Amino acid sequence: MRSGPFTVGLLGMGTVGSAFAQLLPERAAHIAGLTGREPALGGILTRERGSFPEILESSELIVELIGGIDPAREYVLEALRAGRHVITANKLLLSEHGEELFQAAREHGVQLRFEAAVAGVVPVVRVLEESLAGTHIERIHGIVNGTTNFILTEMARGSSYAEALSDAQRKGFAEADPSDDVSGRDAAAKMAILARLAFGTPVRLDQVRYEGIEHLHGDDLQYARELGLGLKLIGTAERRDGGLSVRVHPAFLYAGHPLASVAGPFNAVTVESEAITEITMSGPGAGGRQTASAVLGDMVSAMLPPATPPAPVKRLELVEDFESAFYLHMEVADRPGVLAAVTQVLGEQGVSIKSVVQRGMGEHARLVMVTHAVVESSLRTAVARVARFDFMRSAPRTIRVIEEEFL
Amino acid sequence: MRSGPFTVGLLGMGTVGSAFAQLLPERAAHIAGLTGREPALGGILTRERGSFPEILESSELIVELIGGIDPAREYVLEALRAGRHVITANKLLLSEHGEELFQAAREHGVQLRFEAAVAGVVPVVRVLEESLAGTHIERIHGIVNGTTNFILTEMARGSSYAEALSDAQRKGFAEADPSDDVSGRDAAAKMAILARLAFGTPVRLDQVRYEGIEHLHGDDLQYARELGLGLKLIGTAERRDGGLSVRVHPAFLYAGHPLASVAGPFNAVTVESEAITEITMSGPGAGGRQTASAVLGDMVSAMLPPATPPAPVKRLELVEDFESAFYLHMEVADRPGVLAAVTQVLGEQGVSIKSVVQRGMGEHARLVMVTHAVVESSLRTAVARVARFDFMRSAPRTIRVIEEEFL
Repeated sequence: MRSGPFTVGLLGMGTVGSAFAQLLPERAAHIAGLTGREPALGGILTRERGSFPEILESSELIVELIGGIDPAREYVLEALRAGRHVITANKLLLSEHGEELFQAAREHGVQLRFEAAVAGVVPVVRVLEESLAGTHIERIHGIVNGTTNFILTEMARGSSYAEALSDAQRKGFAEADPSDDVSGRDAAAKMAILARLAFGTPVRLDQVRYEGIEHLHGDDLQYARELGLGLKLIGTAERRDGGLSVRVHPAFLYAGHPLASVAGPFNAVTVESEAITEITMSGPGAGGRQTASAVLGDMVSAMLPPATPPAPVKRLELVEDFESAFYLHMEVADRPGVLAAVTQVLGEQGVSIKSVVQRGMGEHARLVMVTHAVVESSLRTAVARVARFDFMRSAPRTIRVIEEEFL
Repeated sequence: MRSGPFTVGLLGMGTVGSAFAQLLPERAAHIAGLTGREPALGGILTRERGSFPEILESSELIVELIGGIDPAREYVLEALRAGRHVITANKLLLSEHGEELFQAAREHGVQLRFEAAVAGVVPVVRVLEESLAGTHIERIHGIVNGTTNFILTEMARGSSYAEALSDAQRKGFAEADPSDDVSGRDAAAKMAILARLAFGTPVRLDQVRYEGIEHLHGDDLQYARELGLGLKLIGTAERRDGGLSVRVHPAFLYAGHPLASVAGPFNAVTVESEAITEITMSGPGAGGRQTASAVLGDMVSAMLPPATPPAPVKRLELVEDFESAFYLHMEVADRPGVLAAVTQVLGEQGVSIKSVVQRGMGEHARLVMVTHAVVESSLRTAVARVARFDFMRSAPRTIRVIEEEFL
C-alpha cells in the first residue's frame, strides 16, 4: 500500500461536486483511520479552470461529476486507461456507453463505481453488484426519480399537476426545464443501469420504453383511491417470456406494496427473487450532500476493498439515562381530582404531556398519555410517585415513543 | 487466481445450512461465470459426521452455521488462522467475541463476513461496512427480530399475546422455546453487532439493555392507535451525550416513520446521518433460503472483490408485449346499455374486470375499472374499439396496475 495522502481529482463543481468538495475534508481523518491513508482533493476541473491532463497525472482516483456524454466519456476512458479508479454519478453516460467503460475498467484492472448514478445514496448499485451477485433476480421495481415522486405525492393531496410542478421547482426538487424528469427519461436511464446489473445483459437507454406523468389527471388519483390504489412513476426491469422487459410508466399500487408508502422526493427500489423473497431499500434520491455521500462510500471502497471490520477507531462510552418520550397507561378510580393529582406529580418531575385519552369504565377509568421527551430517570421517579396514589387500580405501564416524524 | 473448483467447507446442517447446501449447486454455474471459478461443497460437518481438520484442509472458505459459542468459536478462529475466509451467521458469537475474531481475520489477511447474522438477507452489514464506511452515522433504528414483529402485527389486529405466539409457532416463525426472541435478547445481540459497525466501538451483548414483549397488553396497542401510534420492538444504537446508547425495547412509532409499516416476520433497519438524511432497508429477516442467500452473497464477494460489472453473462431479449392489469377511465353519456356495451367489447378481447366504480354527473357518467392481467396488445385493441362508441365523451385513459400484494 502506498503512503501519503490519497489524491482525488474532481471533475465538475455543480451541486454534487461542490458538496463532495466540502464533505471530503470533513471525513478525511475518519477515512484515514479506516484505510491508513488520508484522502485529499488533488485538483478540480470546471469549465473555467483546471487542466484535465494535470489533474489525471496527480490523482489516484477520478471523480466524474460533470454529467452528459461529452467530454465526460473521454475523461472517464482516459482515466481508466491510465490505471486510475473512477467514480461517476453520470447515469446518461452509463446507460449509453456503459459496456465500453466497464470493459476499459476490467482491461486495466481498476474500479469503476457509480452508486450515485441511481437513487442517490440508496445503496442499490452495491447491493445488486455485490450482495445479490449470486442471486437469480426475477424483478426490480423502482421509484428512481424524486422529482416525479414529489409531484405525484402532492397531486395525491389534491394539487393539480401544474401546481405540484411549480411547488417542486420552488423547493429545488425540479429544474427550470423539468422535461427529462417528467417525461420518464431520467428514470429510464437509471432502469437501464439497474437491469444491466441485475440481469448481466447490456441495456441501453434507447431500448427502454418510457412514459411520463405529464398526461396524468388529478381525477385518476382520486378515483384510484376509491379502489384502494396509489399512483407512482414506476421503473420495472424483469424477466418476461424468457427475455427481459425494462420500462418506466405511471402505475397504480395497492396499499400493501412496499413502494406504496414512498412519499415526497424519496427513491426506493424493490428487488424480488424466489430465494430472497424481496428486499426494499429507500432514502433520498437526490440532494447534493446525500449524493456526495454515495460518492464518498465508493471512494472508501476503492481505497480499501473491505471484508472484515477494521480495528476499533475509538471507544465511545455507553450511556444509559437520556431523554425519550413515553406512553403511560394508568387504571384509576373514576373520581374527581385524579387527573389533576397525576399531572401535578408529572409536572414536578419535569414530565410534560403531549396528549391524553381518558375513558371511564364504571368504577374505573383509563388514563393514557404520551409525554414530551424527558430524561428517563425523571420519568421513572414520577411514575413511582404516581403508583403510590390510593386511586391507582393497577401498576402504571410505560412504553417508549419514538418521536421523529418523517415525510 | 487459482483455477479449478473453489471449495467451501460447511459447518452445520440446520435450516440455513441445508438451504445453503441446496442453493450452492443451483447457482454454481452462474457464479463461475462471474468469478471464473465454480464453487463446490468440499465437506460438511454435523454432529454425526465429518472431521473439522479434514474439511479445513480441503477448503478455501469456511461457512459456519453451527450457532452458539462452542465449538463455533474454536472452528472460526482456527480457520482464520489457517488463512481461510470465513462466513458466519452466528450473531451470538459475534456479539460476544467479535473483536477477537475480527483481529484474527485482519492479522491473517482473510475475510470474515457475516451478512446473515443480522436481519437475514437485508444487506445492512454490507451497507454499514462499505457504502456508509465514510459516513458520520448518528443513529440506527431496527426491527431485527421477525418473531416479535410477527406477534406484534397479530396483536395490532386484535390477537392476544398468547394467541399470536402460538400462531407464530404454528407458522414456523417462532421456536418451541421462544424466550431468546420474545425477551429481546436476540435483537440485542444483533444491535451490538450493528453498533460496532456503525460507530467503530466494540459493544458486547452484556452491554446492551433489552426489554421484550412478554409484558405487553393488547390494550396498549388499541389505546395507542387512538393516539396515532403503532407498536414495534425497536433496537436502537445512537450517539447520545457524547457517548453511545445501544438498547432494545418496545416503542411506539408515528405512522409516518419508515419502520411503522414493516409488518409480519419482516426486518427493517433505518440508518440516519446528517449527510445522508436516512436510508431504510427491509426484507425477510429469517427463512432458510433467504438467509442462505445472504451467505451466498458473502461467498461471492470473498471469491472476487467486485468493483466493476463483469462482462455480460448472456444477452436476454427485450420483450415488449406481455400481461399487466390496467386501470381504465372512461367518460360516457349516462344512458342505459353503456356498461353492457363496454364490458362486451372488453370480454371479446379477453379483458376481464376486477372492480368498477360508476358515477353519474348530470349528462355524463364516469366509468372507472381495474382489469385482471391481460396482454397489453389485447387491452389496446379493446380500448380502441371502446373509443369508437358514440356514447364516449372523451378518449379513454389507461394506466398500468401492479398487482402483487405483500404482507
